[in-house]
Amino acid sequence: MIRYKLTLEYDGRPFVGWQRQANGASVQAALEEAVLRFCGESVTAIAAGRTDAGVHALAQVAQIDLAGEVATDKLRDAINFHLKPLPVAVLRAELAPERFHARFSARMRRYRYRILNRRAPLVLDAGRAWRVPQPLDAPAMNQAAQHLVGRHDFTSFRATLCQAQSPVKTLDRLSIERSGEEIIVLAEARSFLHHQVRNMVGSLKLVGEGRWSEADLVRALEARDRRAAGPTAPAFGLYLIEVRY
Amino acid sequence: MIRYKLTLEYDGRPFVGWQRQANGASVQAALEEAVLRFCGESVTAIAAGRTDAGVHALAQVAQIDLAGEVATDKLRDAINFHLKPLPVAVLRAELAPERFHARFSARMRRYRYRILNRRAPLVLDAGRAWRVPQPLDAPAMNQAAQHLVGRHDFTSFRATLCQAQSPVKTLDRLSIERSGEEIIVLAEARSFLHHQVRNMVGSLKLVGEGRWSEADLVRALEARDRRAAGPTAPAFGLYLIEVRY
Repeated sequence: MIRYKLTLEYDGRPFVGWQRQANGASVQAALEEAVLRFCGESVTAIAAGRTDAGVHALAQVAQIDLAGEVATDKLRDAINFHLKPLPVAVLRAELAPERFHARFSARMRRYRYRILNRRAPLVLDAGRAWRVPQPLDAPAMNQAAQHLVGRHDFTSFRATLCQAQSPVKTLDRLSIERSGEEIIVLAEARSFLHHQVRNMVGSLKLVGEGRWSEADLVRALEARDRRAAGPTAPAFGLYLIEVRY
Repeated sequence: MIRYKLTLEYDGRPFVGWQRQANGASVQAALEEAVLRFCGESVTAIAAGRTDAGVHALAQVAQIDLAGEVATDKLRDAINFHLKPLPVAVLRAELAPERFHARFSARMRRYRYRILNRRAPLVLDAGRAWRVPQPLDAPAMNQAAQHLVGRHDFTSFRATLCQAQSPVKTLDRLSIERSGEEIIVLAEARSFLHHQVRNMVGSLKLVGEGRWSEADLVRALEARDRRAAGPTAPAFGLYLIEVRY
């Protein structure tokens, strides 16, 4: 078998998430179906990040194994042809070494969370960002966020359904920057707990509104209790933007 | 009567354009209808740029006259409430001086044209940018574009249906820059002819592909003949992004 590394863009809204599920359309099933239509092979696609329902990707990485060698440009174009009209596209297809594993070889995952800090409803960014009408203090959010960077027990920011063996993760970067009415959160780590980015954003929003102090965020982290942290930010503001190997 | 200046964002796709027409939904009619529902007044909205079908706006400026004074925040929120679920939103409402005219007082209009220079179909930017699969040379496009800057007879880049009295316009800026796979065209002028930006982009794409030289673009301009220039770039890549008074 020959392994291919595919870099994918998708709009998360019509999907139940990356992973194949009984209750709706998944990105994984869409990709596997397109490969089947192209070459008749039933593959199992494995992705770097099992994004949730509604979460977008600018550069998800997935692997598939095919019986023969296909020119990578042809593979990309053929899968894209069969993905139509779903909002999923293969940006790049590459030959991968045999030991490459889209999920386990990943050394860094980078997510972006988009907040639009304005009163007016979203138009061009509807379903692509979280609209927060009350003014947010982005520098305060960024300063507080630095307490989450490093190796911590992130139980307070972990979905109760999270299946990871340990709640201890190393967060390499969490930065918040304003650009006009947009507030961009960047989060980087080798791996994240389920809902971790969205739960951190939900708590940082409380800091931005002035409802929480920096100390409140630290207390939430130290509580190691999901109920101590803020609500989960909506899925449609989140983008998987890079995976490094 | 009291005049209000409204700054609007819209997704141009579902509309026949800014201007009210018999054959479909216009942004103007949507706005006028929302005002009517809010306060019972039948207004005529006048905009800085009469954008075509499919053209988007990040900051279109329109004026309306109302019988009484309304708090501008309330006006913005109320119109937005009544615009739902159409992809149009009032970003700001301001009191305008009596002599202000959204169309005739405008001193500068700025448009952005977005090209995505890639093989893969568009997903998150579908309907919001023009996908050009063949590699484009953005510096060559930018260099050629400088021949269009200044005061010229733009007949070659003017829609045959254009109603402007004169084809002579002063183009203050035309810049093309690449940022990753995106090529961004910025065009600034006091006013533009009908389809002028899209026609200039259509010709510059020929330069970017290497099918036209800089001299070919100059020849097209000097021909003063629409048939001498390239095809019209699609509407959905174009955004009205700023109007200055």
